[in-house]
Amino acid sequence: MDRPIIVQKFGGSSVANIERIKAVAQRVLSSKTRNNDVVVVVSALGDTTDELEAMAFEINENPPEREMDMLMSTGEQISCALLAMAIKSLGHDAISFTGGQVGIRTDKSYTKARIHSIDARRIKRAFADNKIVIVAGYQGITENQEITTLGRGGSDLTAVALAITLRAKVCEIFTDVEGIYTTDPRIVNQARKIRSITYDEMLELASLGAQVMQARSIEAAKKFNIPIHVRSSFSKEEGTMIQNSEKLEEISVRGVTCNRSESKITICAVPDKPGVAALIFTGISKGGVNVDTIVQNVSHTRQTDISFTVPTSSLSKALKVTSAIAKKIKAGEVTHDKNIARVSIVGSGMRSHHGIAAKMFSVLAENKVNIEMITTSEISISCIINQGLADKAVKALHKSFKLDKINA
Amino acid sequence: MDRPIIVQKFGGSSVANIERIKAVAQRVLSSKTRNNDVVVVVSALGDTTDELEAMAFEINENPPEREMDMLMSTGEQISCALLAMAIKSLGHDAISFTGGQVGIRTDKSYTKARIHSIDARRIKRAFADNKIVIVAGYQGITENQEITTLGRGGSDLTAVALAITLRAKVCEIFTDVEGIYTTDPRIVNQARKIRSITYDEMLELASLGAQVMQARSIEAAKKFNIPIHVRSSFSKEEGTMIQNSEKLEEISVRGVTCNRSESKITICAVPDKPGVAALIFTGISKGGVNVDTIVQNVSHTRQTDISFTVPTSSLSKALKVTSAIAKKIKAGEVTHDKNIARVSIVGSGMRSHHGIAAKMFSVLAENKVNIEMITTSEISISCIINQGLADKAVKALHKSFKLDKINA
Repeated sequence: MDRPIIVQKFGGSSVANIERIKAVAQRVLSSKTRNNDVVVVVSALGDTTDELEAMAFEINENPPEREMDMLMSTGEQISCALLAMAIKSLGHDAISFTGGQVGIRTDKSYTKARIHSIDARRIKRAFADNKIVIVAGYQGITENQEITTLGRGGSDLTAVALAITLRAKVCEIFTDVEGIYTTDPRIVNQARKIRSITYDEMLELASLGAQVMQARSIEAAKKFNIPIHVRSSFSKEEGTMIQNSEKLEEISVRGVTCNRSESKITICAVPDKPGVAALIFTGISKGGVNVDTIVQNVSHTRQTDISFTVPTSSLSKALKVTSAIAKKIKAGEVTHDKNIARVSIVGSGMRSHHGIAAKMFSVLAENKVNIEMITTSEISISCIINQGLADKAVKALHKSFKLDKINA
Repeated sequence: MDRPIIVQKFGGSSVANIERIKAVAQRVLSSKTRNNDVVVVVSALGDTTDELEAMAFEINENPPEREMDMLMSTGEQISCALLAMAIKSLGHDAISFTGGQVGIRTDKSYTKARIHSIDARRIKRAFADNKIVIVAGYQGITENQEITTLGRGGSDLTAVALAITLRAKVCEIFTDVEGIYTTDPRIVNQARKIRSITYDEMLELASLGAQVMQARSIEAAKKFNIPIHVRSSFSKEEGTMIQNSEKLEEISVRGVTCNRSESKITICAVPDKPGVAALIFTGISKGGVNVDTIVQNVSHTRQTDISFTVPTSSLSKALKVTSAIAKKIKAGEVTHDKNIARVSIVGSGMRSHHGIAAKMFSVLAENKVNIEMITTSEISISCIINQGLADKAVKALHKSFKLDKINA
């Protein structure tokens, strides 16, 4: 009979130094009983990744990606060996594995590889010997034994993928926050920890600026219905469970997010004829700029204004591309505004429940916050507003939707 | 048609920082032509190995050897990826490999594994694409994909083993000295670089204290007759070739060495009967002490004195063991002397040419250096003398055997 399996993932800040590695070892041991098995996924020690990257760029402005992966994968190999040593020094047997050793087979897309399959046999053999298994996060191997890395959030993905393969009962993501909050506690004192949230809500929160986990890992967990427990590596408190809701229908606002890293671009006086939007956004995409929200109002003349947001980091590139396109399609002026914020409310079943949108707009109006753009998805409503009013808006929405009253 | 192959090995000090890695890349490129192929073996960056080791011991006083190898092997993986990047930034294609990727198959003796075989196919494929191949030194992999390290001098061994497998025309060992010298240039100003030396002479020099290369690698090169070129990574000068001599017979003193790291132990009044020496040295060996030179004179009474040398680092342990044995066999006092030095002359054909030993003893006598113990091998003669007289002895021998006159 197989024992239940727990997968635990510890990020770089959890293993930043010797003392913390020892603390993680204690933590891992406290989860291991005679009646379960534990797999631990670790990121690289603290700043190791940044340091290795800096060396690479000092040597080669454009370092070849295969060699980057050879280099970067060492960070996780170091931390997993050290954690195995730490656990053994506490008296429990443990064994560390690289991504390659544990059969995390990926495609050949260096620096952003995708996992094809995991061969769990070595892990199962280690379990049979009652060993705690430590796996280097963020890395895999191709069928030609080339080392690959999984890109941003890669260690989370390693943990979720192992949890899926091993049919783990839970995948615990240890981090430096206590869990997922109803909004950013730095903005709203009354922010509450969310006890349980669905994959879709979490995906929406992540895409709207909550930086706890990458969408990739949440999507994978959702697909295979693996519960994720986001919790603090520094406390024993329960964190937030990301899992399917047992309720058939539920309409509730779960969180308020705020993203200040976008800018708005407007093309004025765009000739209003079929195909013009396609022309614009194909051109922008070819220019290598990711567009987020797009708003085009119905027009009553033969011209319209089209607005969209882009990451502020690529604003200058986006303006260059957009201006060229505006000229080509004989549109008017191109304006922009860096001083915006996207404030969103997230929760299941929103779109079919118009009262929520209306309430959001009213709350903003009562607080004299002007709405510049609106977009909605199945489970979120976002308003682009003036950045200077963002904190005020977040606080007002958090209170109005009674998020400070939930029983976390 | 296969092109001639050069194997180059660069030690940790040659790749201690970004600037040196770039210099090594230049150096490697200057060796690569359209008509040859180059494999480069690198050690870990400067102090990386020491730093990783220190972390391990801070975490676990007795770190498990398998995990040590997981940890330590990252050092070479980092430097080989960085060197490949550096070569590519100079415009030549290069590819780095871990020991595992390049098929360096070893046994399972973690931290001191022995190489079983090397599968050269991946290297040959890279050669076919005209790539310079960089291999992480000091490491290998078992048939179960466990990472192993080769122990002290491991990167030299990787280089020699690759040279053997690839039938390279030469294995170049780049180091921070210009080559092998007739004696330690810090003691004798007139020390000369040796242009060519046999494997056996080099082995003797290494065992007598010359620290340029470990005996393991020299023995492997000797067995397969691979010429080794020991040279400086900081200059273009030719260094020392270690290779078979083409002369049929040769009697010449090639170098003078001095080792100050031994101590002498004497057991006085040992009952002179069969089996007593065996009893003593079996006991010492079981006590975990390595004995070097042993001297027992013929005795004219029923008692004799037995002297031997041990590494000073294990003197106190050796004394403890020896005293216990002395008591058991009813011998007399056990005395010791830390203040000794072993001065040796090395060269082929010495033993059959008694004039050389006689000359050595005369030179020491003329310089009022008392000889405490003597041992000889096929190609060396060693005298244990007072440590305070060691420099004087080395200088006198170097001059008398005209080593300052050789045409280096």
